[in-house]
Amino acid sequence: MRPFLMLSMLLSLAVAGCNRPGATDEAQAIRDIETRWNQMIVERDLKGIVGLYADDGVVMAPNMPPMQGPGPVTQVWGGLFQLPGFKLTITPVEVTVARSGDLAMDRGVYALTTTGPAGEVVENGKYVVVWKKVGEEWKVAADIFNANAAPAAPAPEPAA
Amino acid sequence: MRPFLMLSMLLSLAVAGCNRPGATDEAQAIRDIETRWNQMIVERDLKGIVGLYADDGVVMAPNMPPMQGPGPVTQVWGGLFQLPGFKLTITPVEVTVARSGDLAMDRGVYALTTTGPAGEVVENGKYVVVWKKVGEEWKVAADIFNANAAPAAPAPEPAA
Repeated sequence: MRPFLMLSMLLSLAVAGCNRPGATDEAQAIRDIETRWNQMIVERDLKGIVGLYADDGVVMAPNMPPMQGPGPVTQVWGGLFQLPGFKLTITPVEVTVARSGDLAMDRGVYALTTTGPAGEVVENGKYVVVWKKVGEEWKVAADIFNANAAPAAPAPEPAA
Repeated sequence: MRPFLMLSMLLSLAVAGCNRPGATDEAQAIRDIETRWNQMIVERDLKGIVGLYADDGVVMAPNMPPMQGPGPVTQVWGGLFQLPGFKLTITPVEVTVARSGDLAMDRGVYALTTTGPAGEVVENGKYVVVWKKVGEEWKVAADIFNANAAPAAPAPEPAA
């Protein structure tokens, strides 16, 4: 084989290696995990959800300190499951995967439903989940979210 | 040159190519940008701060919808600068760069100071900034944050 041809082939392989296995496939893989995540929420599959996070994965929820690692992540999701009438759906808007396939940004929106004294309350909000490859699997490195609007103030008491 | 030696050298170059210019350097570059960001906050350099964001960069602040693009990002930061006694410091805790050097997660903490009716109020919180390479520069793709604790309720009125 001619040296130039060999060099071309090796460089093609090397460039392909940087991009494996394809950013589109990887983005779809992450969207598929989020579909499962939504199902696990419906099924109250606490162990399954905690398993989506890396061992050093961190939930950064409003009004609490960062919760890092399986114990604290279990505490956050267990607390959510205790909310009266808890329902939650998460919907990715943009999933961007690094060319090297080891890090991805996933940002989207959520709808959190709970039951309050005046009935069902829906909080609409937004999130960023950063995914990283752990072995062959995508795992959550960081998960942060907040609401699109301040909670409605309770109705004022009528003046005495 | 022996074919095996040539192959080894080419593969070494290829592997180095995947990682260029070095994740540690890139993480430091991002930390350096955040140092400048803190300076620009002190200097009220609105244009400089907005220039840190990608053209499709989005600020995801609590209690407002996602604000995407230079106009909306200007609106958010302009609003912050209007807060009485506004001070803000951001401190990265972990910066993780993709091997391909085109995407990075930066999570950290912030302290936001404002002046309220009862004097200075400090809100401590946490953030995730996702950085992406635009040409040769790191730019903010997404910027999301929330507080570690709910704002203190106003002191209750003494009973009549």
